[in-house]
Amino acid sequence: PKSLLGKLLEFGSNTKKIGQDDPRKVIHSVKVGVALTLVSLFYYCQPLFDSFGVSVIWAVMTVVVVFEFSVGATLGKGFNRGMATLLAGALGVGAHHLACLSGHIGEPILLGLFVFVQATTATFIRFFPKIKERYDYGMLIFVLTFSLISVSGFRDDEILKLAKNRLSTILIGASACIIITIVVFPVWAGEDFHNLIANNLEKLGSFLEAFEGEYFKASKDGNSEDNKSLLEAYKSVLSSKNNEESLANFARWEPGHGRFQFRHPWKQYLNIGALTRQCAYRIEALNGHLNTNTQVSQEILSMIQDECTQMCSESSKALKELALAVKTMTKPSLADTHIANSKAATKNLKSLFQSNFREEANLLAVIPATTVASLLVDVVDCTEKIADSV
Amino acid sequence: PKSLLGKLLEFGSNTKKIGQDDPRKVIHSVKVGVALTLVSLFYYCQPLFDSFGVSVIWAVMTVVVVFEFSVGATLGKGFNRGMATLLAGALGVGAHHLACLSGHIGEPILLGLFVFVQATTATFIRFFPKIKERYDYGMLIFVLTFSLISVSGFRDDEILKLAKNRLSTILIGASACIIITIVVFPVWAGEDFHNLIANNLEKLGSFLEAFEGEYFKASKDGNSEDNKSLLEAYKSVLSSKNNEESLANFARWEPGHGRFQFRHPWKQYLNIGALTRQCAYRIEALNGHLNTNTQVSQEILSMIQDECTQMCSESSKALKELALAVKTMTKPSLADTHIANSKAATKNLKSLFQSNFREEANLLAVIPATTVASLLVDVVDCTEKIADSV
Repeated sequence: PKSLLGKLLEFGSNTKKIGQDDPRKVIHSVKVGVALTLVSLFYYCQPLFDSFGVSVIWAVMTVVVVFEFSVGATLGKGFNRGMATLLAGALGVGAHHLACLSGHIGEPILLGLFVFVQATTATFIRFFPKIKERYDYGMLIFVLTFSLISVSGFRDDEILKLAKNRLSTILIGASACIIITIVVFPVWAGEDFHNLIANNLEKLGSFLEAFEGEYFKASKDGNSEDNKSLLEAYKSVLSSKNNEESLANFARWEPGHGRFQFRHPWKQYLNIGALTRQCAYRIEALNGHLNTNTQVSQEILSMIQDECTQMCSESSKALKELALAVKTMTKPSLADTHIANSKAATKNLKSLFQSNFREEANLLAVIPATTVASLLVDVVDCTEKIADSV
Repeated sequence: PKSLLGKLLEFGSNTKKIGQDDPRKVIHSVKVGVALTLVSLFYYCQPLFDSFGVSVIWAVMTVVVVFEFSVGATLGKGFNRGMATLLAGALGVGAHHLACLSGHIGEPILLGLFVFVQATTATFIRFFPKIKERYDYGMLIFVLTFSLISVSGFRDDEILKLAKNRLSTILIGASACIIITIVVFPVWAGEDFHNLIANNLEKLGSFLEAFEGEYFKASKDGNSEDNKSLLEAYKSVLSSKNNEESLANFARWEPGHGRFQFRHPWKQYLNIGALTRQCAYRIEALNGHLNTNTQVSQEILSMIQDECTQMCSESSKALKELALAVKTMTKPSLADTHIANSKAATKNLKSLFQSNFREEANLLAVIPATTVASLLVDVVDCTEKIADSV
């Protein structure tokens, strides 16, 4: 019983943590509960029940399946489900009529054939990348509805009524979801996407800022705990690709909201995201050099310190400026200056290498430093590219 | 009509391409068709229909929803659906009985409350990362079944029969899926996963091989088209994380098959995958230097060529050896030797820098070369780590 208690406690702390991290998740859960309870009112309310009959279960099912965390995802699923049901319902009724014409023996054979052909085709179409991206769920519902309608039709002569009921209850369920998801504390995928891109830029900026302090081991060792988390944060950028893509996908379904219009240029966000990731790969390589800087003599470090610090802090400022620009959707005013500054620092560093190190006997000792420096140059280049596309 | 024709042609060529790239996708589509047709036989067959009634639709639905591309995914979904239906059915019946005790007015209120509470709780639990990973679908079905059972119970006094029918038809549908997916041309997620990991290693190996030729621009410019694709191939490794994780997830559901036993150490594959990605990040940085090697003078290049070539080719061989070892599940016999060789080359390169470049006046010119070299050193280190974990 003790391990059970332990698990319960863990469960409790998990719950609290998720709730604190993102209170929208709690609200979302309550929203689902409300929507489901509302729809199940249809069962208790005699006149409503009379007009739809048992088909009301489709409304309940729709709510459970369609209600997603963000508005875009819910709209996309609702649209897919509605359209697919409409299309497949019409085709199913048609197939049923066709099969009826072929007599008592032909009917089941023909129906079986129809089901087989459409299931095979639709399943295959789901492999098309474009379809998979946006209409995967619709194809699934298409197969489902077609099979249900054409097959039940074999038993039930009220097939038209069945199709109509299924469609209308699904529409009711879907609109309940959509209305609740938009009206009550909406979670916009577009906004999340927007913030994700801006935060990723900011994370890279913070890394560079922390890297500068850490690599040249400034005297203030006190806040190295703080730095640690800043130095780790960029890792999530490396693998944010899928996340970005699905958010972009959801965002495309959303109507205009807040500062975003319908058909906001989400594609460009994806571009920025890709460039940000490029920059993050360089930073990952840079991070590998953090713990090996003991091999570099203090003397050499202090020689390049000024310029490297300059490069780091200027490109960090530029990245943060860009993040702010994305966040507030304004033109980045100072980013260009910062980039110019860091490029100047790069140039200085180069001439420094050319002049000062000529007498340096131990070239081997310089190499790690030069590597760091040239990775920083890469980072500066990446920053410039990002600035161009913002 | 012409654009329609064009679209049709595009559709045709798309179909052909997908079919040729992976014939298993065509087979999968046919399998779904067969399963669906088989299950819909229940409708046509009088004695079977009599025992289940309209509940047969659940079997059809189950097939449509549960049948996934790989065995693991199908098993996971089938298991989730079955267990969730069983649990939620039992709880739903219980809730219904409890509500019945509270009289005519209390009953709908109590039922509504139950539905609300369970929907809210279950939706929230779906946010738990561990649950989301493996039981997301089960939670969805749980909410669905509970709502359906407890709500329909308000109308239908044959609630036990309803619950029983739903459960048994779902089991029939799920087992049809599972049997077909395992018996007819099975697609094992585990095998795909296995191959993905091995191929990723191989891609990195090929990159290094091609890089060596490209960077030092060997005379044979003829096969640079070939090289191009080899140099691009590694990019897919950068973003394969999600793919690896979902395959690992599916693979865990699969029973033993072929050379894999149940509880094959899939976690270790994930480790290798993560290390491979680490190495790919370095290679991404290296790739950035491919087009800038014009800045390096031929003289310097030729000085480091021997050692760099050695490092590239030896670590490339080691990676390929490791890929082969993963593929055939044998101990890599020669990889250690190759790694030792490339480490020796690294050492030589270092002493080369120390001795030969002392007189070299233009340090600036050497820097790009040293950067490449030290990135190669990183790659060698990564290779060693991968070798340790294979």
